[in-house]
Amino acid sequence: MTDLPGPPPHEAVQPLAFLLGTWRGVGEGSYPTIDDFPYVEEITFGHVGKPFLAYAQKTRHGETDRPLHAETGYWRPVGPPAEGALEVVLAHPTGLLESLAGRFTASVGGGTFELSCPRVVATDTAVEVTATERRITVDGDTLTYELSMAAVGQPMTHHLAATLTRS
Amino acid sequence: MTDLPGPPPHEAVQPLAFLLGTWRGVGEGSYPTIDDFPYVEEITFGHVGKPFLAYAQKTRHGETDRPLHAETGYWRPVGPPAEGALEVVLAHPTGLLESLAGRFTASVGGGTFELSCPRVVATDTAVEVTATERRITVDGDTLTYELSMAAVGQPMTHHLAATLTRS
Repeated sequence: MTDLPGPPPHEAVQPLAFLLGTWRGVGEGSYPTIDDFPYVEEITFGHVGKPFLAYAQKTRHGETDRPLHAETGYWRPVGPPAEGALEVVLAHPTGLLESLAGRFTASVGGGTFELSCPRVVATDTAVEVTATERRITVDGDTLTYELSMAAVGQPMTHHLAATLTRS
Repeated sequence: MTDLPGPPPHEAVQPLAFLLGTWRGVGEGSYPTIDDFPYVEEITFGHVGKPFLAYAQKTRHGETDRPLHAETGYWRPVGPPAEGALEVVLAHPTGLLESLAGRFTASVGGGTFELSCPRVVATDTAVEVTATERRITVDGDTLTYELSMAAVGQPMTHHLAATLTRS
């Protein structure tokens, strides 16, 4: 089972084909309960010709280079492409599962995703994260995002912002 | 951010270090609502020195070679290693999220995992799978598993069995 030159993107993911590839950059994390921290990040989007994108992300501390977060899952356009509805399912090594839903709005050279997960699922031993919101914008070879979360008793609060470039 | 020769496995995952690497093999799928089908499979386990294993799986049809299933997530040993408690969080491109919990029992050259997910989480558009059970056994360079699921109105029923070899 080798990854030969694959099929073209499925019709359902063609509006999101600009995401395909590897993105690298830096971000800044903050939260009321922790110290601010810089991080470096790598995101990859792939496809196998089916109606979803495979997604993986990992970050390292910007100063110490130690591994920080990772997450992995799938992006699923749903419904008529013109409506831009999207579901994203993600697993986290911290024991969290996110089922995000939202909308993609196209623009020249990319577009903006607004996604929210009103109820994060957690294993018995996971840290308490109850809800998340993400806003991701792609403009040509630049991807920026902001992520907020409600966690450890805090209301929905800004947590992460980063700017990545297509590699 | 390159994947240089990494750190040793975290203490928490050392009992599961025999999983690390790539496994390939063949399986057979069945379910009351579908025709039986053969498949080929590849599973990878990796680590970054933190207390979890990164996991990814994909299958192709055994006769047509078209991509079938994929899943990705993390295996998390929890609690005292001697007790073998384990959590596994998985995302599926079909819009499902599994939070599996169970136990690892060591044996010479490997061991057996018994995991269950009593309540699968699904996006609004996902096919209806309500619960899953997995039994995975590693004996040296051979990994076998059986997977059952309760789906589309059926009770917990055998679905998949496969035998893989370490590559």
